[in-house]
This record gives sequence, C-alpha cells and structure tokens, in this order.
Amino acid sequence: MDRQEFVDRLDDRLRTDDYADLDASANGLQVGRRSGTVDRVAIAVDAAEATIEAAIDRDADVLLVHHGLVWGGLDRLTGLDYDRIEPLVENDVALYVSHLPLDGHQELGNAAILADRLGLAEQEPFGEYGTEYVGVRGTASDAYTTADLSARLDAELDTETRVLGFGPDEIEDVGIITGRGVDWIEAAAETDLDAFITGEGKHESYHEARDLGVNVFLAGHYATETLGVRAVGELAEKWGLETTFIEHPTGL
Amino acid sequence: MDRQEFVDRLDDRLRTDDYADLDASANGLQVGRRSGTVDRVAIAVDAAEATIEAAIDRDADVLLVHHGLVWGGLDRLTGLDYDRIEPLVENDVALYVSHLPLDGHQELGNAAILADRLGLAEQEPFGEYGTEYVGVRGTASDAYTTADLSARLDAELDTETRVLGFGPDEIEDVGIITGRGVDWIEAAAETDLDAFITGEGKHESYHEARDLGVNVFLAGHYATETLGVRAVGELAEKWGLETTFIEHPTGL
Amino acid sequence: MDRQEFVDRLDDRLRTDDYADLDASANGLQVGRRSGTVDRVAIAVDAAEATIEAAIDRDADVLLVHHGLVWGGLDRLTGLDYDRIEPLVENDVALYVSHLPLDGHQELGNAAILADRLGLAEQEPFGEYGTEYVGVRGTASDAYTTADLSARLDAELDTETRVLGFGPDEIEDVGIITGRGVDWIEAAAETDLDAFITGEGKHESYHEARDLGVNVFLAGHYATETLGVRAVGELAEKWGLETTFIEHPTGL
Amino acid sequence: MDRQEFVDRLDDRLRTDDYADLDASANGLQVGRRSGTVDRVAIAVDAAEATIEAAIDRDADVLLVHHGLVWGGLDRLTGLDYDRIEPLVENDVALYVSHLPLDGHQELGNAAILADRLGLAEQEPFGEYGTEYVGVRGTASDAYTTADLSARLDAELDTETRVLGFGPDEIEDVGIITGRGVDWIEAAAETDLDAFITGEGKHESYHEARDLGVNVFLAGHYATETLGVRAVGELAEKWGLETTFIEHPTGL
Amino acid sequence: MDRQEFVDRLDDRLRTDDYADLDASANGLQVGRRSGTVDRVAIAVDAAEATIEAAIDRDADVLLVHHGLVWGGLDRLTGLDYDRIEPLVENDVALYVSHLPLDGHQELGNAAILADRLGLAEQEPFGEYGTEYVGVRGTASDAYTTADLSARLDAELDTETRVLGFGPDEIEDVGIITGRGVDWIEAAAETDLDAFITGEGKHESYHEARDLGVNVFLAGHYATETLGVRAVGELAEKWGLETTFIEHPTGL
Amino acid sequence: MDRQEFVDRLDDRLRTDDYADLDASANGLQVGRRSGTVDRVAIAVDAAEATIEAAIDRDADVLLVHHGLVWGGLDRLTGLDYDRIEPLVENDVALYVSHLPLDGHQELGNAAILADRLGLAEQEPFGEYGTEYVGVRGTASDAYTTADLSARLDAELDTETRVLGFGPDEIEDVGIITGRGVDWIEAAAETDLDAFITGEGKHESYHEARDLGVNVFLAGHYATETLGVRAVGELAEKWGLETTFIEHPTGL
Repeated sequence: MDRQEFVDRLDDRLRTDDYADLDASANGLQVGRRSGTVDRVAIAVDAAEATIEAAIDRDADVLLVHHGLVWGGLDRLTGLDYDRIEPLVENDVALYVSHLPLDGHQELGNAAILADRLGLAEQEPFGEYGTEYVGVRGTASDAYTTADLSARLDAELDTETRVLGFGPDEIEDVGIITGRGVDWIEAAAETDLDAFITGEGKHESYHEARDLGVNVFLAGHYATETLGVRAVGELAEKWGLETTFIEHPTGL
Repeated sequence: MDRQEFVDRLDDRLRTDDYADLDASANGLQVGRRSGTVDRVAIAVDAAEATIEAAIDRDADVLLVHHGLVWGGLDRLTGLDYDRIEPLVENDVALYVSHLPLDGHQELGNAAILADRLGLAEQEPFGEYGTEYVGVRGTASDAYTTADLSARLDAELDTETRVLGFGPDEIEDVGIITGRGVDWIEAAAETDLDAFITGEGKHESYHEARDLGVNVFLAGHYATETLGVRAVGELAEKWGLETTFIEHPTGL
Repeated sequence: MDRQEFVDRLDDRLRTDDYADLDASANGLQVGRRSGTVDRVAIAVDAAEATIEAAIDRDADVLLVHHGLVWGGLDRLTGLDYDRIEPLVENDVALYVSHLPLDGHQELGNAAILADRLGLAEQEPFGEYGTEYVGVRGTASDAYTTADLSARLDAELDTETRVLGFGPDEIEDVGIITGRGVDWIEAAAETDLDAFITGEGKHESYHEARDLGVNVFLAGHYATETLGVRAVGELAEKWGLETTFIEHPTGL
Repeated sequence: MDRQEFVDRLDDRLRTDDYADLDASANGLQVGRRSGTVDRVAIAVDAAEATIEAAIDRDADVLLVHHGLVWGGLDRLTGLDYDRIEPLVENDVALYVSHLPLDGHQELGNAAILADRLGLAEQEPFGEYGTEYVGVRGTASDAYTTADLSARLDAELDTETRVLGFGPDEIEDVGIITGRGVDWIEAAAETDLDAFITGEGKHESYHEARDLGVNVFLAGHYATETLGVRAVGELAEKWGLETTFIEHPTGL
Repeated sequence: MDRQEFVDRLDDRLRTDDYADLDASANGLQVGRRSGTVDRVAIAVDAAEATIEAAIDRDADVLLVHHGLVWGGLDRLTGLDYDRIEPLVENDVALYVSHLPLDGHQELGNAAILADRLGLAEQEPFGEYGTEYVGVRGTASDAYTTADLSARLDAELDTETRVLGFGPDEIEDVGIITGRGVDWIEAAAETDLDAFITGEGKHESYHEARDLGVNVFLAGHYATETLGVRAVGELAEKWGLETTFIEHPTGL
Repeated sequence: MDRQEFVDRLDDRLRTDDYADLDASANGLQVGRRSGTVDRVAIAVDAAEATIEAAIDRDADVLLVHHGLVWGGLDRLTGLDYDRIEPLVENDVALYVSHLPLDGHQELGNAAILADRLGLAEQEPFGEYGTEYVGVRGTASDAYTTADLSARLDAELDTETRVLGFGPDEIEDVGIITGRGVDWIEAAAETDLDAFITGEGKHESYHEARDLGVNVFLAGHYATETLGVRAVGELAEKWGLETTFIEHPTGL
C-alpha cells in the first residue's frame, strides 16, 4: 500500500484531525516521508529505543504506537530525541502515532475494547476532554464485586491491579479511561459510577478516591493500553498488510 | 505562641515567599484566621478527610502538611473542597502548607534529610525549578550496589522500592527529588549521577531511564515525604509547642 | 425542597452556564454543600459580614445575592475571605450567587424590571458583553424630560439620582445597565439613545458623556440592583419557599 | 524653551520611563511633534473637549494633564478620539500626560502634596503597584477625629468628602492614594492605618471598609488630583514658562 | 454621498468585518470623522507623506489605500505617525483602508483581478488565513512556459518579475497571493500548483522554492497591488464619485 | 577535536546562551549527537538541500550555518523538514547554528566585519533587540557620498546594492544590521545616522525611509551575511580544524 494512503486511511478512521488542538502528542505521521510503500507494520505501545530496534529487526516499514516521540514540539534534534529518531531515519521506518484519538475511539480505542472484554453493555463516551471524550462507560449485566472485577482485570490484561476500594462492593456502572486517567475520579463520582478503571495512579488519587467514596482500579498504564494499538493492527491486517506486535511491558 | 508569630517564623525559616511565583500550592497559612494562639500542631503529609479528622481528634490548633488543599486557587467552595475545609473551619483548625519550599530546603527538606539518612556527603542543591532547586545531590563515602541502595531505602523509609536499574551497578553520586520527581531523570543523566531517587514514577519514566542508562529508584511518594514535615515538627517542639504526627500512608 | 434541586432550578432559569466564561463571579452555588434541604432563603444585594449575619439571624438555609464572595477564584482562604465565609460554614448556610446572569436576564434581571417600572415598551437586549447582553433598552410611550426621569428614578428606587445632562431634554429611547454600566456610554451614543441609566459613575464618565452629548443618569449601584434579587425571591416564594429580603444600602 | 527639552526635563523629573510597563496611560508626550518651542503651558486634570478648547483659547503650546487621551493604545483614529485630537492637531497644541508617575511622585505627586496640606510628618511611599508606589503615608502630629479630617479635606480641596467611618475615631496614621485608590483599602488595613484617603469609591468599597474596620475618606476624584498638575505647573513657571490652570471639576 | 454611507457601502462590499480579528491593519475608516460628505476619492497603494500630499493637492475628501497607517494600534500619536496623520486632520481628508479584505476578495481583490488578466479559468480561493483566504488559484487554458508567464506579468503590471524557476516548465495551474505572499510557497507545493505568483520574496524563499520544486514568480509588492484599489475606484465611479489614482511605485 | 568541545567553545565564544530567549532560531547544536569528533567543518549561510549535499560531498563532520532548520520548534519531523534533516542523520553530519548571536557579535559578527571592511571607526553596538544588540554603528574617517558607499558595498560584497537615497549625500555616521534589518530604520533616524545598511528591504521600507529622510542601503540578505560564518570558519582553522566554505547565493 502507498504510505500516504496508509496514513490517510488511519487519520480518517481514527479522526486524527479532531484531536489536533487537544493533544500535546503530534498524532498521525510523526516522523518520516510520505512517499514510498508500506508492507509490514510493527505495533507497540511506546516508541523508544527497545521498540524501535525491534521494529527494525522485524523489517517494518512503519512503527505504529500509542506514545510517540514528539510532545509539544521538538526544540532541536539532539540528545535523547536524536538517539531515538536516528535509527528510524537511517532505516526509513516511519512513525505513526495515535494517542488521544486512540484513547477516545468508541470502537477501536483502549477503553472501548476493555469495556467489551469486561462485558459492559450500553456503552457510551465518558471523560470529557475539551470537545472530545477519552474514555467509555458501560453497565455490567451481572454485578461484579470489587474482588471479582480486580481478578477479571488481572486475567484479561495480564497485570496486577491495585484497588482503592472506597466505593460500594457491588459494581454495575463502570467508567474506563486507560493510562493516566486519574484526573477523572471526581467526574466518576459525579456520574455516580460504581467503579472507575484506569492505568496508573498518583499519590493524591488515594485521598481523592477515599474522600469521594469511589472504587478506583489501577490496572497499569502499559497493561491497559495494548488493546487499542492491537485493534488497529487487526485493521491493518484486513487491509492486506503484515503486522507484528512488539511486547515490552514497563510494569508501570 | 501567637498564631501570626508561628506563621511568620515558619515562612521565614522555610523561605515561603521565594517560591510564591513557582508553586501552584498556596504555601504558608492556607486556611484559617491569623489571630488566636497555637499550642498543639498536628503534622501530616497530606491534608484530606482522614488527616483533618485526626487533627481535630487530637485537639490541634494547626494542621501542618506538605500537600494542602488549594492548588492554583479555588474556583468556588463546594464539593470535595467544601467537605475537606468545613471541619477545619468548624473546629478553628488552621492549615499551614509547605510544598516546594519543603522539597527544596537544604536542611529541613525531604531530600536533604533523606540524603543525611543515606550518608551522602558533599551535599548541594539539585533539580532546578525556575529560580530555585527542589532536591539535593551528594556522594556516598562507600559505594552502594543497586541492591544495597534499594534495601537501605526500604529500611529507612519503611517502603518497597522499585528499581529501574539501567545504570551502573556501583553507585556513588546520588540525586534525590522526593515525591513526583521523575521529570528530572534527564537532568540526572546530564549531571552523570549514578542514581536518582524519587517517590513515584510514571509510565514513560521506564523508557526514559532505559534509553538514558540511568538508575532510578522509586521509593514511594508518601514514603519519601514524611521526612520534611517531621523535621518541621521537631522545630516546633523546640519552640515549645506540642506536636503530633498523623501517619496515613497511601501506598503510592 | 432539596438543595440540589433549588440550585438546578435557578441555574436553569437564570441561564448560569451561558455566562460561565464571561463573568469573573463564580455564579450558581458558590459556597456550601449540595446535599440537604432549603426551606428559607435570605435575599440580599451583597454578601458581606452584615448580610451574612442577618441571614443567620433569620435562620436562612441559603443566602442568595447579586454580588458574592468569589471573583476570579480564591488564592487561599484567609483574611477577609475567611472572616466572611466562616459564619456561612459554621451555620451551614449556602451562598447562591447570580451576577451577570441577573443583570442580563430579560425578564427577572435588574435592567428589565427597572424598564418595566419606567413604563418602557418595545424592550430588547442592550449592552453587548461577549456573546451575551447585560442590559435592556426600550421606548417611553410619553417622552420624559430629564427632570421627570430623574424624579421618577428617585421615587421608584428610593435614591438620589445624579444627572449628567448633556443630551436632549426630551427623552424617549432609554438604555439601562444597572450597577457599574458606564463602560457602555459610547454604545448608548452610537445607538442614538436619548438617555442611559446606570448605577454608579466614574470620573471619566463625565467628559465622555459631555463630549458625546449623552444624558447619563446615575441612580446608585445598590439602588439599581435590588430589583433582580427581589424578583428571584418572588420566584422562590412561588416554589413554596419562605423568603426574607435583607436591606443594607451602601449609598454608593 | 525647545519642545523636546521641555519633554525631556519633565520625563526626567517625573521618572516617566520607570512607569512605562506599569501604566495603561501613554505617559510623556502623547500627541504632537517634538520640534518647535514652548512658551505657554495650559494645565488641567483631564484632556477632553472642554479643556482642549480652553487651552486653545488661551494660546497654549502644550496642554499638560493627569488624564490623557490614549489608554492602552488607539485602535484607529475616529469617533470620540478623533473629535478630541483634531483640535490639538489643527492648533499644533502638544499633549503631555503624567498619570501614575504623578500619583506616585514623592514630592510633586497628588498624594505627597495632599499629605503636606494635612500636615502629615514622616511621609513614606504607600500603595505598591508592581515595582513602584502610587501614594504616600504619614502621621499627623495632632490626632484628627474623623469629623475634623473630613472638614479639613473639604476646606483644602473645596470638595464634599464622604466618610465610610468604620475605623477608630482618633486618627494619626493616614494613607493617601488619590483618584481611584479604593483597591488599596485592604493594604491600608494590613498596615494598621487609622484612615485611608482616596478620591472616588465604588459600591463594594463600603462593605470592604466595614468588614475590615477601616476609615475611608472619599474626597472626590477630580478634587484630589488637581494638586499634582498644579505643582508641575509651578515647576514650569520656574523654568520661565507661562502657565495657566484650566479648572473644570467633574463632581465625581 | 454622505461619508458614513460611503464607508458602510465599502465595508459591506469588501466584507471588512469578516477580517477584523485576522488583520493587524485597522480596516475600514481608519482616520477621520464619520460626518460630512464625499465627492472626490483619491486612490493609492500606500498611505505615506507623498500620497497624502498628492491627495490633498487633488482636493480629495477621502484617501482610499491598501496599506494604511495603523497596524496593531497606535501607542501614542507622535513622530512618524504624527507627521503622516497631521495633514489628513488639517485638511479633513479621511483615510479608508482595505488590506486583507482586498487581498482576498474574489472579485475586486488584487489576486482575483490579476488572475483575470492572466486568463485563468476555474478560479477559486487560495491561501488559507485563519477563517478566510487571501488569494486565488486558477488554470490557464493554454499552458504558459516560465518565460512566457514572466513576460506576461512584466507587461500586465509594468514590472520586472524575478523567477525562482524550480518547478515544471509547462505551467497550467497557478496560485496568486499578491504582496508578501511567500509564506504560502509550501501550500502551493502541497496543492500541486505549477506556479505561484506573489509580490516580494524574502531570502529563505529561494531555498524553500528550490527544495520543494516550485516555480515562484516575484512580480513586485507594489506592482501586484495596484489592481485592487483601482477596482474599488471604478466601483466608486459607478456610485457617482470622482476618483483619481495616485501612482507612486516603490520598486519593491 | 571532540564534538562536545567544539560545541562548547563556539557557544562560549558566540555567547549562544545570552540569546536563548530572544531568538526563534535554536542556536548552538541544532541537529546531531554530542559524542564523536570533528575534523572537517563545512561553512554556509543557509542550511538547505544544496548546502547539506555539498557538506556531505566534502566529507564534513559538522555543517555550520547562520540560518538553520529549526525556527520556533518542529511540530513533527515530516515533509520539507524531514527531507533536509534526513541526509544529515544518514551521514552523521551535525548542524551547528548561530543566528542572532552572529549578527550581534561585536568582533566576529556580520555587521562588525562589514564595518571593518568599510573602514568605520569608533564602532559600538547598534540595534537593540530585547537585552542584546544585533548590529554595529561607526564613523567613516573620510565621508562617503551615497554613490561611493554603494559602489564600495558592491565591491566588498560582490552584490548589487539598491539605495533608498532619502538622506544627506555626505555620509559619516553609519549603522549596519545585516539580513532583514529594515525594522531598525526608525532607530537609525532617531540616532541621526547618515546611512543605514542592511540586507533585504520590504515594500514599506521605501516610504519609511522617505518620510524619515534616511539613506537606506539594501546590499542583499545573502551578500551581507557570509562574513560572520567565514570569520567563525577562520576561528575553527586556528583550532586546527579543516574548513570549507560552501558558496550558494540566493540573489535575495
């Protein structure tokens, strides 16, 4: 497939432009030329030395990630930025990034797919972010206990979930914002959700959850964010491209 | 002691004014009237429902914390803010806050005291933040291995340190910024530190440490930040005040 | 009535949200918890020590005012702010504020009701403020002289109107922006109004009125702004609540 | 005297440049060419149609005022701005403006001279405004009562002072910021002044003075600000120029 | 014609208001009063001493230009600004300005008329600038060579075109943004235009054109911008006004 | 020489850090790694496809230019930016940039060296830009006529100078800001310079020079800016490095 067509299809499907003014991440084609073709796509959560090397080892034409290399622009191309971008340039591997567009996507997104995995029905957007949403909420047909939901997350995501269990023990209404979604704990409380699932916490989330009486499930930033890029990989497979997923958990 | 004098002494000793334009936290007297007296001071890391209730139970006149309630101003006094501030007002307990001034203090600060505990010599300021510093660096007389340093942190801080061990195994030069100090990993690498100790990590810290070849020790946000407020408590004892420390770890 | 329902009804009726980005005042529920009930509502122009004490004396559950306590956010809760908010918190009196929404409301607003009192027909919005209006204009069926209009204002508002009488002596088309509306004198001139009524002037208004040839009537900030809150009080009465108006003129 | 020299001497004496980034007013030569000579200087508080016409009638080469025509720049030169500037241009009358530099000047300024008139000793700067001050404070050798001080202001300034008499009846320490100085009421309270004198009030000043327990004297914006320009006029006389004061009170 | 009507007609026809937030130029009536009448209109590209004097010599009531005197507001009215505005005021000549509105106008604009002169068909807006366009693109029925197009521009505009001939020699699709349009060279490349015509270049345009492989024709800032004001002059003639064009090329 | 040492020496000598907040250009090492060595330095005015290719052809380790590739940061690394940066990365050629530091340098800078070439004595900084200067002024021992000075510039810089000869014919005091220095024409007039030399003009410079009565010499952006980089090249030669100058005039 022409590289430009690959980029255009993804931008269109993921609504890249709609997040252009919201996201510090430069989404879409972030590094590389628009000409040339794409046969093999490497998929990873993060763009970093390890995943870039793996993509090159696997002869990828494009590395598609959730977390790219350019956040709020590059002041210059030196140091850590240079070290990571150099192998991409030398091996003509383009970097395609989808950060918030892939968090908020109601079908291919990290939260949407996790909601599917947890069997949540009546899904709708959750987590306002400017003019868009970055998560999903839904309702469990059979209520979970906090222990059940924690175990289910561990099993689905191969993770060790930490529970701030300050809410009700019976859980039906669940909100999900993967990664660093703890800024929406108060929104979860105001929406009367029984549980809020996200990736990594921060210190002040503990007291926020406690004082608001909300169940917060911290299932890991990496663990909650392999889902979206994998789904985009499956899409690319349908377009006839070869894909390969580069697993590199951070434990965070 | 007059409440105003207590506030003035602390502001002076902690250089509160020098951080006024740098810190989102409203440092100094954050909630309460300036008149009245102080006999008993409760000390905690965080101002939240649990610690505020404990301070009231212990008949404190002032609650002194590292993390207060007002960050960047209050838009209105409702919801979670109201619920936390109400018991302070009803019981006339003042809230004194010292955030960055207590991180960066080269004698009473979180990092300075941890450096003492680890036996670091030749201490000097580390971690530029605008016109000030928020941490400390120093040199171990006997080199640590990563395992030794991790064990020492666990013992000193009653915590479970997580190590991103991408640097040298022999550690002499150590930088410390407690709490959420991971934004200074690159500064640690540029200064050729053998190890950088902080509180909590975030997902991208993993690859940043890995690609820069730095040892990062994540010893817990709460665990690394009881030291400064305790030291201020000892100071208050010397001024003839009664103090009480409210332990409430968050595990984060 | 549930307190939350009371707040929701008022926010809805007064279009609080539409002024959220325009007004430095934190409109709506400004201080207090959302739970609990409302039986008695105290009404005043200003939230200050005198009116807050009166509201407490009269056993009010809510104090509803035009001028609240939070303008552009609170940096901390100390000093004058603490002294005013403390009795509200101690007595669990909520503070509901409606500033620009009540200036611009075309039915319950200060200007709209004054226009009714003056017998102005064909009323329409006047005084653009971003995307909204903060006043009203209308036409007198029988023309006023400046002396007549001044006397009529004195009688209706129990005030002593000061006239900057630089316009025509026969007045038909009248614009009204209560309180500190003098920034719209030039707008009044451009719209060819015969008279512009507002609350308090400022020094430069004199020459502005003189050089533009406009009649400006300064009827007092307090005097022109009791109308809107009284109208909201009548509305609350209709909802079955007991109301009490706290009169406290400032003479300004 | 050369016009340029006249401008340079005033800018130097009044420290015009030190207020350049603080003041919305374009201080110094605001309208006119720098070439030519100055023989006669008209002095007024405000630049407006009436005072500009009077300056032309009196054959002035320069009109020197406290309140000029350009505040924060001119978007275009039409309407009221054109009408006021046109006669200056047509008659080659330059406009020299000194706003905050003349409020804060510790010798020629409005507040400094009023302090002299009231017999205040130990004068020092009062009223911080960025890096400068805009007023003066001092101590009366014999204490005033509020009634005495009010009467004295009426006599000295030919005005009708309004007193917000919420402070002590015996007045020794007095702060003065002429014109619209009411934003410094809280500063006056924090400095433990017995009285604060300014020009015009605003509605919220009433409750602010009341709740802080401060005596505020509102002596009129115009009345308190003839002193500085008159003093500059005397200076110009000493330089050998002819001066004429244009009296045009606004009553505000 | 009444001056106000003249201004209103032009503002309406040129869509002055639509460019209000986009253009540093104060478009519409920039200097002068709105009352009075217009009989004779002088037309020029630039407002400057030479053209203003010529307008006065020719007894014009209004000087209509593309480049006015106020860009981003006047801080004060002195120096060069005073020297240029003074003769306008003294002779009561109003200044009407149309900058970007006249660049982007699809019928009367500089680019649109040049496109007509070059015989370009299928014209449509080119050159996004915020919410508007500032140029035109179209297609030549018979392809030009670069030499032909350059010669044609020289003949039509009485200029000496400089060609950065880095694109194809056969030219069909042409974009035009007069004056200083070089910031749109990359847009021309992305739109696959065969040539981009503008007024003046800047140093970096050379390499930008070269590296992008675009033909850029620099036909002179003055030379490309007499067309729009002349067209507006013809419109004024149709309204019954007398017009006179003041030719004053800058050679730039 | 170690690459890092080369960069440090230049940064120190050119005072790169002092311009960090003033210049949109990312001065110093702009692209490339800090490790490795430098033996051969290519010197050019502009970084662009042609000069980058030439630097690679000549086996340079570093390309040192006045105009780099990053102005105000890179949003992403694609398109024209990618095409220019790719060959640098692939061939491990570092890019060192010195923009304003090299304009304002009083010894090695473009203006300073041109002043030497023209025989100007008593040189001092000219052209304030924030806290720094970007040019030089000096006095000719023997006065030039405008024709002489133009001819001298043509000879020294191999250019065709265009003269806006609106000032005195006898020229002694000369200001120089190379490149796009026309924003300082008014400063030249206020400093009573007889002539102002810069690189390229813009349309409005014509009337500005005319109305202010200043001689402006436009000697070409490229032509006036080869001097500084050549001087830095000579410095590098003294350090024992091999240098090569890449000539590529733009004619602008």
